[in-house]
Amino acid sequence: MDEFTLITELVKHLGSRAQGRWVQLGPGDDAAVIQATPGYDLVASIDTLLGDVHFPVEARPFDIGYRGMMVSLSDLAAMGAEPRYVLAALTLPEADVHWVTQLAQGMAEAAADCDTYLCGGNLTRGPLSMTVSVHGQLPAGEGVLRSGAQVGDHIYVSGPLGGAAACVRREDWWYTHELSPIQRCFFRPVARFDLVHQLRRCARAAIDISDGLLADLAHICDASQVAARIDSAHIPLVEGAGLEDALSGGDDYQLLCTTAADLADWTCIGEIAAGEGIWLDNQRVTAQGYNHFGAIA
Amino acid sequence: MDEFTLITELVKHLGSRAQGRWVQLGPGDDAAVIQATPGYDLVASIDTLLGDVHFPVEARPFDIGYRGMMVSLSDLAAMGAEPRYVLAALTLPEADVHWVTQLAQGMAEAAADCDTYLCGGNLTRGPLSMTVSVHGQLPAGEGVLRSGAQVGDHIYVSGPLGGAAACVRREDWWYTHELSPIQRCFFRPVARFDLVHQLRRCARAAIDISDGLLADLAHICDASQVAARIDSAHIPLVEGAGLEDALSGGDDYQLLCTTAADLADWTCIGEIAAGEGIWLDNQRVTAQGYNHFGAIA
Repeated sequence: MDEFTLITELVKHLGSRAQGRWVQLGPGDDAAVIQATPGYDLVASIDTLLGDVHFPVEARPFDIGYRGMMVSLSDLAAMGAEPRYVLAALTLPEADVHWVTQLAQGMAEAAADCDTYLCGGNLTRGPLSMTVSVHGQLPAGEGVLRSGAQVGDHIYVSGPLGGAAACVRREDWWYTHELSPIQRCFFRPVARFDLVHQLRRCARAAIDISDGLLADLAHICDASQVAARIDSAHIPLVEGAGLEDALSGGDDYQLLCTTAADLADWTCIGEIAAGEGIWLDNQRVTAQGYNHFGAIA
Repeated sequence: MDEFTLITELVKHLGSRAQGRWVQLGPGDDAAVIQATPGYDLVASIDTLLGDVHFPVEARPFDIGYRGMMVSLSDLAAMGAEPRYVLAALTLPEADVHWVTQLAQGMAEAAADCDTYLCGGNLTRGPLSMTVSVHGQLPAGEGVLRSGAQVGDHIYVSGPLGGAAACVRREDWWYTHELSPIQRCFFRPVARFDLVHQLRRCARAAIDISDGLLADLAHICDASQVAARIDSAHIPLVEGAGLEDALSGGDDYQLLCTTAADLADWTCIGEIAAGEGIWLDNQRVTAQGYNHFGAIA
């Protein structure tokens, strides 16, 4: 099993998700070719997931692939963009064709769930990691940034939080057949592209909740130079998750936005205020999201 | 020194290469925002470079950054595309701000040399690696693929070969001040965007020489279902490089194209023929490019 054979297998299992519609040329040449949409801006982001840092290496490769795609795609949703194409760079310790096949199937399913394509990639041998580069589009000038929050805006979250963190906290990686609801929060996050039209129409600022509610809300406050006041009683929790999971746990990939409008289907957890910092139940709190180099002096 | 401080330093040293002109929003939000050009297709590729596999970890970080950018950008040139934006995902074993600063300067210089932008990225802690996702554009439908070579085409290369391989073969990594010419071949490859107009106008097939002349010519032959006949006496060599360096060494990032036209400034090394395989001085030869999983049964 050499590199090119492994790539061929991988692409085979991507099936119709490697090329089609706006993706005119998929894997196999020096680069992929994608049609742009007149009047639209491009939106682009990249994420790396390392084995045993961002996911347990003993997890099912299907789940690792699915999650890796969604975690990265979520950044596009947070801008109000629709996904167009994805590139993935895999580093694998060994050429296990069964493992790679399952990974590709998970990635293809995530691509299908988001109506996008995985049209290019790279394969190297080394410590297990997965870097996913995601590219979307939105009508020119309509990107929803972190920096637009205004005093008086309501703060909304798009769904219940803390489930993925509860899964991580319990090291709840084992399953024989079906994923539990808590495990689904971690392994099957769903990038909220169903909400991007509403975001573009209504939101002044938005972010996806990847580092934890407090850390991500702090990013909005910093970028917008405002403060936030939130109420713990209003924070929606996944069943089995605690408040701390939601505040500091991350990995939920729900969206957070600020707006002057009333949003049905979202949960209002507080309000943007003048000043700085985050105030939870009238007490100032510090964000404690995941920080890769936090332990280094 | 935490993750966000390190990112801030890194972005600071990217300077004007992080945002500008068609890059409307650079690092700092969930994703970057880039203007598309009406009537143009997007062209996209991704590459991973691992420490001590693709570059010596003891090399200067400036050179690692410069080379990592160019190696990846070269895939766009091979399609006949102009570069538009780059995303980079870095995995670093420690938070060495001096090292990261130098790396960023090397990346910024490569971006400047190609008139492009490094507008987004990701930083994680782990074994040293650099994944670079490159995105370009070309007039719709004008991409130069590997699959277009026709019987009777001349085979051209854009410059002398083998220099980078000679550097690798000699493990010639050490320098106190100036890079030697051979070291420049390895550490300062130049993606040949100066040739993309000519490629789009004249070439039927093209590829960049990253795996070695034989391996990359074989990719064109396989994709085009043709054979190639080349003449060793015509292969241009970097001074200090041997024929084997050029044939099997890779890392040169010159372009190879096939065309019915006569190309000034390029070197004709042979001709596309009917059949299959590569014939060097009338003997059939096997491509031996770098293969990451080649050692695995």
